[in-house]
Amino acid sequence: MALKIHGIPMSTCTARVLTCLHEKGLEFELAPVNLSVGEHKQTPFLSKNPFGQIPVLEDGDLTLFESRAITMYVSKKYKEKGEDLLRLKGDDLKEQAMVGVWVEVESQQYSPAITPIISEYFLAPMHGKTPDEKVIEAGVEKFGKVLDVYETRLCQSKYLAGDFYSLADLHHLSYTHYFMKTPWASLINSRPHVKAWWDNISSRSAFQKVSQAMTFGDKK
Amino acid sequence: MALKIHGIPMSTCTARVLTCLHEKGLEFELAPVNLSVGEHKQTPFLSKNPFGQIPVLEDGDLTLFESRAITMYVSKKYKEKGEDLLRLKGDDLKEQAMVGVWVEVESQQYSPAITPIISEYFLAPMHGKTPDEKVIEAGVEKFGKVLDVYETRLCQSKYLAGDFYSLADLHHLSYTHYFMKTPWASLINSRPHVKAWWDNISSRSAFQKVSQAMTFGDKK
Repeated sequence: MALKIHGIPMSTCTARVLTCLHEKGLEFELAPVNLSVGEHKQTPFLSKNPFGQIPVLEDGDLTLFESRAITMYVSKKYKEKGEDLLRLKGDDLKEQAMVGVWVEVESQQYSPAITPIISEYFLAPMHGKTPDEKVIEAGVEKFGKVLDVYETRLCQSKYLAGDFYSLADLHHLSYTHYFMKTPWASLINSRPHVKAWWDNISSRSAFQKVSQAMTFGDKK
Repeated sequence: MALKIHGIPMSTCTARVLTCLHEKGLEFELAPVNLSVGEHKQTPFLSKNPFGQIPVLEDGDLTLFESRAITMYVSKKYKEKGEDLLRLKGDDLKEQAMVGVWVEVESQQYSPAITPIISEYFLAPMHGKTPDEKVIEAGVEKFGKVLDVYETRLCQSKYLAGDFYSLADLHHLSYTHYFMKTPWASLINSRPHVKAWWDNISSRSAFQKVSQAMTFGDKK
């Protein structure tokens, strides 16, 4: 039975999971969730994810939520297929540990800095609000500091966890994709090693398949 | 060579790692970091963690930061010792996946709700500020909703990932320990299954060894 993803291709967290599935070369079914009518905040969706958020993965009788937990599961279960996103084949605990560190850095440092910028810039106007400039300003300052660390790190190795592409890099793709459509894209473009890393990881065919549907905020 | 932890026992993130080390019955050396003089924001500490945060783990020539990445590494490397915090012994991918989901729930749902309450209540006064009641109010509302999901979950199983103690539970200990010293402890105490879970996990001897030094905010 094929894997089933509940979500929408435009969503950052759904896109994170879809990118992982493409890296592994897996077949899957995408079951759209109608956010505009609040389908994710009602049963039966809430029985799949009680927090009422997309995406959800169903694999037979196993139901998982939280995009980063889903990508970890998929990377582990299908470790022999496609890209070895957790460095499980080599059985090198140190490489795996470095993937773990930079997966957490994305989750605890990068994401909290970049998310408020994207939310204010794209989502506030959707709700009839003016983007809060103070929130954006604080976010931009915080994100710049995070990117300074990334610039130093990416001087030392081609990818975040070492000289190999991993889940640590992949987890950054979907939020950064939207960030690059904001007026603050220069934060990435002005840091040469971060820029080279971004150009490299965002041009991977697995993400290209996903990003073409990530049109949120595009002018029509 | 023994594991070396740079941090302070009173810190939530250091305590998370120390609890894990005690669960595994490992020997370690705790190297204190003098936060009051900003040791964590200067070299040589920044060469260990460029984000300038505690804790850091040194295991021979391997240096790791981000507390949740450290506990994952320790739980994996010493899977045969002490408590099997990632359910690696049984090789049951579904159990491991559920640990992964609830590790992420702590990181993405529980922690963002509980942290602002603790920061405002304990840290703002330290910096000569009055706690921001609006921030606390929003945090309490958000945290209550998260705990509603926990109450339902903990009706179904004794622990978050299933009927076994895991890293998913352990990661909650240090922040909740401080939260229980705030005037909003009733959010936990009024939910019978959450309360029973909290009483159970906080009374484990590994955490008792750590929590006795977590005296931040106590009256002298």
